[in-house]
Amino acid sequence: MIMAQKPLIFVTNDDGITAPGIRALIDTMNRLGDVVVVAPDRVHSGKGHAVTIHHPLYLDPIKIDNGPQKEFKTNGMPVDCVKLGLAHAVERKPDLVVSGINHGVNNSINVLYSGTMGAAVEASIEGIPSIGFSLDNYDWEADLNPAKHYVLKIARQVLKHGLPQGVSLNVNIPYLPFDKIKGIKIARQAMDKWHETYDKRTNPFGRDYYWLNGNFTYEDKGKDTDVYALKNDYVSVVPVQFDLTAHSVLKDLKHLENQ
Amino acid sequence: MIMAQKPLIFVTNDDGITAPGIRALIDTMNRLGDVVVVAPDRVHSGKGHAVTIHHPLYLDPIKIDNGPQKEFKTNGMPVDCVKLGLAHAVERKPDLVVSGINHGVNNSINVLYSGTMGAAVEASIEGIPSIGFSLDNYDWEADLNPAKHYVLKIARQVLKHGLPQGVSLNVNIPYLPFDKIKGIKIARQAMDKWHETYDKRTNPFGRDYYWLNGNFTYEDKGKDTDVYALKNDYVSVVPVQFDLTAHSVLKDLKHLENQ
Repeated sequence: MIMAQKPLIFVTNDDGITAPGIRALIDTMNRLGDVVVVAPDRVHSGKGHAVTIHHPLYLDPIKIDNGPQKEFKTNGMPVDCVKLGLAHAVERKPDLVVSGINHGVNNSINVLYSGTMGAAVEASIEGIPSIGFSLDNYDWEADLNPAKHYVLKIARQVLKHGLPQGVSLNVNIPYLPFDKIKGIKIARQAMDKWHETYDKRTNPFGRDYYWLNGNFTYEDKGKDTDVYALKNDYVSVVPVQFDLTAHSVLKDLKHLENQ
Repeated sequence: MIMAQKPLIFVTNDDGITAPGIRALIDTMNRLGDVVVVAPDRVHSGKGHAVTIHHPLYLDPIKIDNGPQKEFKTNGMPVDCVKLGLAHAVERKPDLVVSGINHGVNNSINVLYSGTMGAAVEASIEGIPSIGFSLDNYDWEADLNPAKHYVLKIARQVLKHGLPQGVSLNVNIPYLPFDKIKGIKIARQAMDKWHETYDKRTNPFGRDYYWLNGNFTYEDKGKDTDVYALKNDYVSVVPVQFDLTAHSVLKDLKHLENQ
């Protein structure tokens, strides 16, 4: 009997390779295939789709637990992990790229700032089905078991059915006991935003500095959004595309051509 | 006779506040309104939509030339410039945010990695009409005069007519003498990508390192793309949205809800 090749699953995150979220993700992916991890050696929150151009990157094999996965840490950001990892850490194109489990939600507009989703989107540019997972809890001591259940479910489905070309999934999981999560909702990105405030302080040398301290404002009242799904105890799944063209307004802007 | 208030124009970039591209942009905007500049104190290529969370930001008044604009430099990235600048450098909401002129194109997929466009997109989230300008030349000695002509034209039109809600413009300008540029084309983002290669080298201490060195591959053969427009000597203008939802596939993913 010839065994089918196991799927190859590439794992990364933006909270760093030792974060409980990625350890839980690795543990879950080990149940589905061969796992290669390339993740940052430090926390990289808010790095979005940033990529390292002006300094070199290291890619160091590392052993953190007794799992069967192959692991590398790098000084790069999440998108770097995908680019460098696909070029030098795997021997074939992975069947799935997963990122997370992020400590904190990446719903609504946060998808733009999220390194977790930056990594997933980068994989989709490379034509690899990809998913970013985030949990609605910032505490590194949070119970990740209910989340792992949905991570396994969704990853298994994506391995089986694939994803539409150019699309990755932004999955946000409520922080609730397993029996309180109502299920999965396909949703659109809520059009909410941060209301920026900066704490203005003075450093020990008398120079003013500013520290980002925004409030998230819920402006989108739609019931088909990721924010609404999450508030109503569902796991939200938003299909995310990297074509940023606002196709619907192309015609409206034709007047600019006549200048 | 009561004079109408001059428009307030906010200027930023990702090449740093002393780059010739932003100096040319400031010079051009001074012709259209009151100008406030908040720009990085160093080069921040490839930072996309990254935002600074874990360290404080400075915002220092600076005088670089004899123009009438008000200027600040910051240790932040392009998106930080917009967030911090709107919070602490202007007294009212600007009528227009412009970013650039970037030294190097940001067409096709590069829109995702571009700090120039990250800043413009951030402004559109804040409901401010915004434009990122990029020139198809990396040389800081490049002649910026033909580009300035189109920057003025497009900025004037956007001040006059505004932009659709949630949309910013990604403007790429060919590096050609003025009489060789054929005009402006509204275009979609070409679905091209980088083929990643990394130079693998060894540092003086024997440790391997990797340096990003990709090739851009032209895979999208469409004649309605920004890449095509630019190759055919047009200024390309892509309307860019920050709603990343792949609306067309929402229904196709409903099966995930039944897991």
